[in-house]
Formats: sequence, C-alpha cells, structure tokens
Amino acid sequence: MDKNTKVAVLGGGSWATAIVKMLSENLDSIGWYMRSVYAVEHIKRNKHNPNYLSSAELHPEQLDLSSDINATVANYDVLIFAIPSAFLKSELDKLTVSLKGKVIFSAIKGIVPESGYIVGEHFFEEYQIPFEDIGVITGPCHAEEVAMERLSYLTIACIDGHKARFVSKCLKGRYIKTKISDDIIGTEYAAMLKNIYAIAAGICHGLGYGDNFQSVLMSNSIREMKRFIKKVHKMKRNINNSAYLGDLLVTGYSTFSRNRMFGNMIGKGYTVKSAMFEMSMVAEGYYATKSAYKINEKNGARTPIINAVYNVLYGGKEAKSEFLKLTNRLN
Amino acid sequence: MDKNTKVAVLGGGSWATAIVKMLSENLDSIGWYMRSVYAVEHIKRNKHNPNYLSSAELHPEQLDLSSDINATVANYDVLIFAIPSAFLKSELDKLTVSLKGKVIFSAIKGIVPESGYIVGEHFFEEYQIPFEDIGVITGPCHAEEVAMERLSYLTIACIDGHKARFVSKCLKGRYIKTKISDDIIGTEYAAMLKNIYAIAAGICHGLGYGDNFQSVLMSNSIREMKRFIKKVHKMKRNINNSAYLGDLLVTGYSTFSRNRMFGNMIGKGYTVKSAMFEMSMVAEGYYATKSAYKINEKNGARTPIINAVYNVLYGGKEAKSEFLKLTNRLN
Repeated sequence: MDKNTKVAVLGGGSWATAIVKMLSENLDSIGWYMRSVYAVEHIKRNKHNPNYLSSAELHPEQLDLSSDINATVANYDVLIFAIPSAFLKSELDKLTVSLKGKVIFSAIKGIVPESGYIVGEHFFEEYQIPFEDIGVITGPCHAEEVAMERLSYLTIACIDGHKARFVSKCLKGRYIKTKISDDIIGTEYAAMLKNIYAIAAGICHGLGYGDNFQSVLMSNSIREMKRFIKKVHKMKRNINNSAYLGDLLVTGYSTFSRNRMFGNMIGKGYTVKSAMFEMSMVAEGYYATKSAYKINEKNGARTPIINAVYNVLYGGKEAKSEFLKLTNRLN
Repeated sequence: MDKNTKVAVLGGGSWATAIVKMLSENLDSIGWYMRSVYAVEHIKRNKHNPNYLSSAELHPEQLDLSSDINATVANYDVLIFAIPSAFLKSELDKLTVSLKGKVIFSAIKGIVPESGYIVGEHFFEEYQIPFEDIGVITGPCHAEEVAMERLSYLTIACIDGHKARFVSKCLKGRYIKTKISDDIIGTEYAAMLKNIYAIAAGICHGLGYGDNFQSVLMSNSIREMKRFIKKVHKMKRNINNSAYLGDLLVTGYSTFSRNRMFGNMIGKGYTVKSAMFEMSMVAEGYYATKSAYKINEKNGARTPIINAVYNVLYGGKEAKSEFLKLTNRLN
C-alpha cells in the first residue's frame, strides 16, 4: 500500500457519496462505480449526485466514474463497498473479473439477505478473500453531516493494521477523525445490530413510550449487543467505544434513521407490509432482525430486544403486547 | 422496616413532587416537607403543586404536608431528600431535631456546594449517619414523564438490601419499575457527573457540532465516567446499567435539561454569568464541574471532558478553542 495504490468506491447512495467526498480531500484520483448511467453523467456535468446527498459538491476531475462494475474492480486495488446490503449480491453477480488480490473494505451496515452473512463473511465465504484483506469502515456517521463538513469520527477496522492505517489516511481530514481497530467481526455486527435496536426505539416511540424508557432501552441494547457479539467472536473490545455505542446512539436517537422510522410506523399500528410500502423501501434492520435471530438461536445469548422485534416483524405478534412483555425483561 | 415505617419526602420541586406521586400509589400516608407555606396551602386546596409538575394530580388526604422541616424529620423514619443540592445545607441548618436513627435516601443529583460532598457523603461526614442507613434513588427519570405516567425505571441503592427493597416497594407500580443496587457511591457520582456531560453536550450543540459528534461525546463520556468512579470507589459495576448509562443518555439527549440548556448558551457565546442570569437559576452541573475537577486532581483519572468544561466555566477559557482541543482527545 503506497501512493500508487488505487482506491475505488462502489455504490451510488448517500454513504458512498460521503465516502467519495472524504477521499477527494486526500486523493488525486478515485474510482467510483454506480449502477445508474444517468447519475454518472449528471455528476460529470453538474458536480452533484442527483439522487443522494445532492448538497455535497463533487469534483469530477478527480473521479473515474463508471457504471460498469467490472471496469472499476479490474482497475482498482482497494475496493470500498457502500452498496446497500440488499443489492450487494445482485451487483456482485455481474462480476466477470476476479476479486483475487483485491483489498475489500465494507462500508455496508447490514446482512446480505441471500447468504445471511455480514459483508466481510460474505466475501470470505463466497469469494475466498482472506480475512487480512477484508476491512470495515464504520461510524457513528450520518452521511448528511459529512456533506455539511461537521466533525465526525470513523473507525477503520482490519486485522492487517497496515491496510487499516492506509484507508484511515485516505479518509481523515479537516472534519473526519479516524480510529484504527482490529475487530472486523465486532464492528460489522455492531453496525448491523444497531439497526435492529433503532427499529425497537421506533416501535417504542410509536407505542407512546417516552424519553425515560428510551434511555433504558438504549442502556439494555448496548448490553445485549455486547452479549451477542461476544458469542459470535470473543475478543477484548470496549463496547463503549464510538464504533459500537456511538454508532448505536447516533442511529437510535436519530429521527431521520429509516430503521427508526420503520419501527415507529409499526408501533403506530401499520402492518409490516404497509410500513414498507409507505416507505417505498426496506429498512436494513428488517433483514438484520431475521439474521440476528437465527444466528443467536445457535449461540444462545440473552437477546430479549432482538427477540421482541423478531416476533413483531416475522412472528405476527402485536407490537403493543410484545413490547409490554419486553418491558419486564429490561432493567 | 415494615408496614408501620413512615416515609417522608423533603423538597417542593418537580422531582420531589414526582416521588410523592409514586409513593401515593402505594402508601396510605406520606410526610411531605416543603419550604413554601403558600405551596402547602395550594396543594391542600387545589390538589396540585402550584410551581412544579403542576399537571400531576395529588391526593391531599394521603399527605401530611408541612412547611416545618423539624416536624417532618421528627415524625418520620425514612427521609427522602429531593431538595436541590445548592439549598440542602441551608435547609439542614434549620434542623433542631436529631437525624439519629433515621434512614436517609438521596434523590438529589449533585454536590453540596459548601462541603464538596455528594449527598450521601455529606450526611455521613456532617451528621454521622452510618452508610447502612444511607440510600440513593436514581433515574433515568424526567419528573415530567412520571406526571404523564410514562413507564420509567428507577434504581434504588443501599448497602443494606433490606432498606433498598423497602423503598423500592414503596415506589414501584404501574408505570414505575425498580432495580436494586448496592453501589451508593457510584450511582450518586453518576447522577452528578452526567450533569457535567450534559453541559458539555450543550456547549457542543451551541458551537454547531452535529449528531455524529454528540454520539462520540456520549461514548467518550460514559468511558470517562467509568474511569472517574472507579478511582473514587472501586467495585464491580456495569457502567452500562440504566443508573449510569441510561441516566447519562436521558440527560445528555434531552433538550429540556437545564444543564444542557446552560451549556448551549455558553456554546453560543454567553458568558457564564449572563447564562446564569438568563436562566434565573444555577444549573446543578455548574457546581458539579468544580467538585469533580477538584476530586479528580487527587485521583488522577483521565477526564478530558470534565477538564474542558471546567476550563470554560471556571478558567476563563473560550469554549470554541477549548472544545476544539477536546475533539483531539476523544475517539
């Protein structure tokens, strides 16, 4: 990894756009793949992503934009994936070039629905990428605040510290601080689990619970997250670091979080189907809930919050009675 | 402690009123001391506290109201103090009857400015109340939500589990759940320290930092709180329990918190004096900051957030530059 290492971002959403913006502060040239030919052309001409984070000014002269995923993968060494997990598999299915020798960083917060893996595991299991070549970029970070250049802290995790430091150097700057970690499993699970807790927070809000209860829910959520992750991958980690607790809080307390909004509608009495229809999208925590529940069936951590959300989203249980039961399991 | 044990609340503010409301659900008769003769008469006639939490309906037939602190102290066994810490000493100075044999529960979140002690220590040092007779009632709990009967969780701490369970039984009910703890020092310091972190959160908000940074600040605050309390009183405690982390979050994320509001004004450029004048009151975290700073000078925990707040409130430092320095000390 040196000055000649070429970095690309894959994805056309808010978070991908925010990452491109951060990289633009440090790198002369950045590869950027997105599916939409229209968006590529729009960015080249108007210096803004037409669909997401459109307030962020982009610099097309630094960008090697492409709507051909094979071209981007073939030409770049470090591939930062920021494609929503629900679309990752269909994007990867387009690949005809090899991922061999590539360094893969996941900036995706979720589970690949088809495989049930978190993103790092998916690349390891399905593409035989060695764990030393897999990394994670995690918040707490709303993309919108990156656009506004508000100070944000990222955690860059990779077992190979050299690669973590390289990506960290590419991202950090005036309004971005970075921290290095070697916990690729824990940080990625945290990023995925927090969406479930954000759904829970939304459901409670929709049901009329107040701020006192929300703080109890978050306090229980971080303890539950710790138990869950410990069963998946036991190592020394401080669950109160920004990548875990901070990420949970920025999502759980955000009224803009799609997962929280989705939960709020469920709490207010929408069916799962109609909430999804109203939002015209699927909240990532929806898939995460099922996967986390299934994973934990084997692992057996005490996870009353995940269970309650699962029972409501997949078990046909009524939110009101299910969360009333939950209140007796929290403290 | 049995059915004949008599319980009184001392204080006339929101939190005192909320505690009286909770007790009224379980006890036939409650002593209630408040300074204001007018408020006592108003409650008797109108079933509401005229000044605080006036939406809560009170039941004068259950209340032994008094504006004579000596009468209340003399006649009751368990005394729940909910007087703001800044006024505690002047109230206690009125005592002519003895506190000997009384069980004292503190529902006060702060430091006694004159002695520099947390409330439990103050009673131990100044009144020789043995630690087994001292307890703490702590949140996360906004009094306003108790008035609305929104589900809230309290932690009742006492070294003597029997006393903790007794008070817990008096408080819990339809909308109140309780948890027992033996960490009277830790829970009380947490309740005090959280006000400093709420001031810090307010300062950052006033300076224009966003949600991404707030979550990093809270994540760092709970780690700092853990280090601070560990130096004061080392014991096995889970800092992520509701009494510590939950209490921090409900205050740090509340836009109604007076401490956060005070910090916000400082961040927006008010001087300490003018912010106090505008609020026509002193935020409890103001005193807590000085005490915590002094205590930690001896203990030597790493407390960059407390130090930054101290430097702004007492050291004449500019909030903007002090908090810019702070951002480099967080992660």
